[in-house]
Amino acid sequence: MPRPAVVLASGGLDSTTVLALARARGFAVHALTVDYGQRHRRELAAARRVARALGAVEHRVVAIDLRAFGGSALTSDAIRVPKGRPARAIGRGIPVTYVPARNTVLLALALAWAETLGARDLFLGVNAVDYSGYPDCRPGFLRAFQRLAGLATKAGVEGRARFRIHAPLLRMTKARIIRTGLALGVDYGLTHSCYDPAPGGRACGRCDACRLRLNGFAEAGAEDPVAYVPVRRAHLP
Amino acid sequence: MPRPAVVLASGGLDSTTVLALARARGFAVHALTVDYGQRHRRELAAARRVARALGAVEHRVVAIDLRAFGGSALTSDAIRVPKGRPARAIGRGIPVTYVPARNTVLLALALAWAETLGARDLFLGVNAVDYSGYPDCRPGFLRAFQRLAGLATKAGVEGRARFRIHAPLLRMTKARIIRTGLALGVDYGLTHSCYDPAPGGRACGRCDACRLRLNGFAEAGAEDPVAYVPVRRAHLP
Repeated sequence: MPRPAVVLASGGLDSTTVLALARARGFAVHALTVDYGQRHRRELAAARRVARALGAVEHRVVAIDLRAFGGSALTSDAIRVPKGRPARAIGRGIPVTYVPARNTVLLALALAWAETLGARDLFLGVNAVDYSGYPDCRPGFLRAFQRLAGLATKAGVEGRARFRIHAPLLRMTKARIIRTGLALGVDYGLTHSCYDPAPGGRACGRCDACRLRLNGFAEAGAEDPVAYVPVRRAHLP
Repeated sequence: MPRPAVVLASGGLDSTTVLALARARGFAVHALTVDYGQRHRRELAAARRVARALGAVEHRVVAIDLRAFGGSALTSDAIRVPKGRPARAIGRGIPVTYVPARNTVLLALALAWAETLGARDLFLGVNAVDYSGYPDCRPGFLRAFQRLAGLATKAGVEGRARFRIHAPLLRMTKARIIRTGLALGVDYGLTHSCYDPAPGGRACGRCDACRLRLNGFAEAGAEDPVAYVPVRRAHLP
């Protein structure tokens, strides 16, 4: 019997690569998507496609409305998603797309499911290279959560196996993440990254997520299979 | 300006006492109720009443369906709530009413709201005396979460004031909690504790929550103002 693992799957490029890595390491993947009222709801459909295509044992969507708290361009209509920033400027300071305590909430939910499944392994696609602006993408945060998980649960009290938080992309560049996924046969055409897609669903090509993604594919020497709105990208810095 | 604090308010006896204590300590209370699909939904109405009566600045309810994960008698219809256990037997071992990773999820949500409010103080009504069976009611868990909070948030990264998790009931007996609340003028008739109320809303008097509550009032030498279904309590151990 393969060991079960809970994999946080947003439908984006990073978490899709993580799902493929967890499968490649022999885990039975229970994919968890948290619908926290994000603006880019196409991620939910992408997450379903990805979980099916990559052979997850099951996929669950848990809804929680973080919009109740406000405070982020990803969940609030009152804050504009920044556009057209050069990729080198992304990751300096904490972006307005930061969702308060997001990874704490996501990992707490993954832990709840893991406990009922008897799983001890949680996977998430955080990255400290491209997105260094997010506090909850730092190694110290992940270690602190791993410690908390052992104290928070029945399994911890009963002295059974400890929880492990896997963040295999933590120190990878976007280009290396893409090369890793392509080597595992991931079809990135199933994924969705854009913070602000056009009405037809095509990626804007100009938000931070699109810029990092396009830069990553360019550096990896590969073609991004998703559709973008036609912009004169040659004129952007 | 009083300092803001997020208080996790379930509508039960313990968290109501905590809300009164936070107010007495001068905090501007932002009360947060998490509707995690619990069987005792009357708690939600009780939480609203309590927040209003005790002068919270605001009260928000965030819905999240932990039933998606199963595993607890409080959220699953497949597991029976235990009845008629003597109070001295309650708290030995982990009860089936344990909700997986519940306090981790609750504190993560409180932290998300605190970050958008600029609050550094979180209050919750955990207790390590009566409910020693719950792993996430232990002091070590609370310390680990406090540490995590600093690493998880913008405020932590920017080196501003640290978060503080307040659990003022941690070492109090139920009788002492009740005496504390009564001294602060709390009307416990507004609260709801029963895990399995009768159709009319009256408390069953026999589940663990009712037994601990009734025992607490008896020890405090006070009368519980909530209505119970008429049972021959004299015949129970």
